[in-house]
Amino acid sequence: MSDAYQGLVDEPLDADYVAGAVDLLGVLAYEELTTYQSLSVHAFSAPDLASRLELCRFAVADFEHIRLIEGRLGELGSTLEGAMAPFVGAIDDLNRRTRAETWLEGLVKASVAAGIVADFYRDLARLVDPRTRAVVEEVVADNAKSDYLIEAVRSSIEPGSKEASRLSLWGRRLVGEALTQAQQVAADRDAMGGLLIGTVERPGADLGEIGEILKRATARHTERMTRMGLTA
Amino acid sequence: MSDAYQGLVDEPLDADYVAGAVDLLGVLAYEELTTYQSLSVHAFSAPDLASRLELCRFAVADFEHIRLIEGRLGELGSTLEGAMAPFVGAIDDLNRRTRAETWLEGLVKASVAAGIVADFYRDLARLVDPRTRAVVEEVVADNAKSDYLIEAVRSSIEPGSKEASRLSLWGRRLVGEALTQAQQVAADRDAMGGLLIGTVERPGADLGEIGEILKRATARHTERMTRMGLTA
Repeated sequence: MSDAYQGLVDEPLDADYVAGAVDLLGVLAYEELTTYQSLSVHAFSAPDLASRLELCRFAVADFEHIRLIEGRLGELGSTLEGAMAPFVGAIDDLNRRTRAETWLEGLVKASVAAGIVADFYRDLARLVDPRTRAVVEEVVADNAKSDYLIEAVRSSIEPGSKEASRLSLWGRRLVGEALTQAQQVAADRDAMGGLLIGTVERPGADLGEIGEILKRATARHTERMTRMGLTA
Repeated sequence: MSDAYQGLVDEPLDADYVAGAVDLLGVLAYEELTTYQSLSVHAFSAPDLASRLELCRFAVADFEHIRLIEGRLGELGSTLEGAMAPFVGAIDDLNRRTRAETWLEGLVKASVAAGIVADFYRDLARLVDPRTRAVVEEVVADNAKSDYLIEAVRSSIEPGSKEASRLSLWGRRLVGEALTQAQQVAADRDAMGGLLIGTVERPGADLGEIGEILKRATARHTERMTRMGLTA
């Protein structure tokens, strides 16, 4: 990380606070790991070598995010494997339920998933310490990938075509599954839930704010779908 | 690349010479691309998160090699896609014929393939210009990955067991297929063949030397198999 990062206060944190930050970094790291692997596999279905290389470049960038997260987890006294482990089951289940069958389904999925993850975790990062927040913000700030995926889908489909309506349906299914799962994870994990709820020493989100986070994530998802030439 | 690389003479090369170097870089880049993608997929079969992450780290390092190769191809007036394209068919065929079915088969394949590629292309790199040679040598010098794969296989199998004999057979099949294919590629591609044969201005390998290259590659393969606890 940058000099600015080194300048961020790393003051002693209470145990709940650390547990919440570790959970946030762990779930994000596991999302990045599965995205990196899935994009690397999906690149085998690319229609040409140039798109295949391009998708691989973005996949590798996702893996580089994991190294950033690993650095912060080390500072918090945790490890990548330890922090990821509680989220493996839920994220693997989600991926099994939403397997892309075609090149374009895979691109839509990558775009929808990366968008939801970025929106959701960027909002949650406001609730953690400055250094953890800086890591999360750097990880989710990947606009080049998002623009590439949106343009790759947009330029391949005819608006209003059968393919466009099929992919629109696919996008709706993905966002529904992802939001359901995110809420489930927050409910199941005490540390993650604790992040949202806050304590006397540490402000959290109230129920109204959680509603706002979900509303914003949905609005941005609709925007991305529209840019791809699909309906949300 | 390093300052030492910048210091290497980049004198004007004749067209045959450039074509041979581009072919060598192209085939190596496509080997690295498929290896990176295959290891990233194979990591899904890892028995635990730690091995999965470790394999992904090596896969990403293979992708980073592609960036080095791309830099040199640019200096030679070529592109990654252009240089790779002639080798896609042969390498994809080889991979289709040698699909790993288990975690250990995949590790043995990664070790055998990386070893053969390194030995073979390191020898061929003696026949190209200093800058191209430096890039090839840096790409194939990945001992950490080789040691990791060998140790991962060795520590998982009982010497003399049924599994060991099955994997030994698998290793023999892999090396046979790889060497057959390498000779086929050299025979099919004029520029690649030209690299080996040499011209008045530029020394090449004679038939005796080609035999030596294959002999050395086979001897080093046997050594690696032995270190894994397998028989070659």
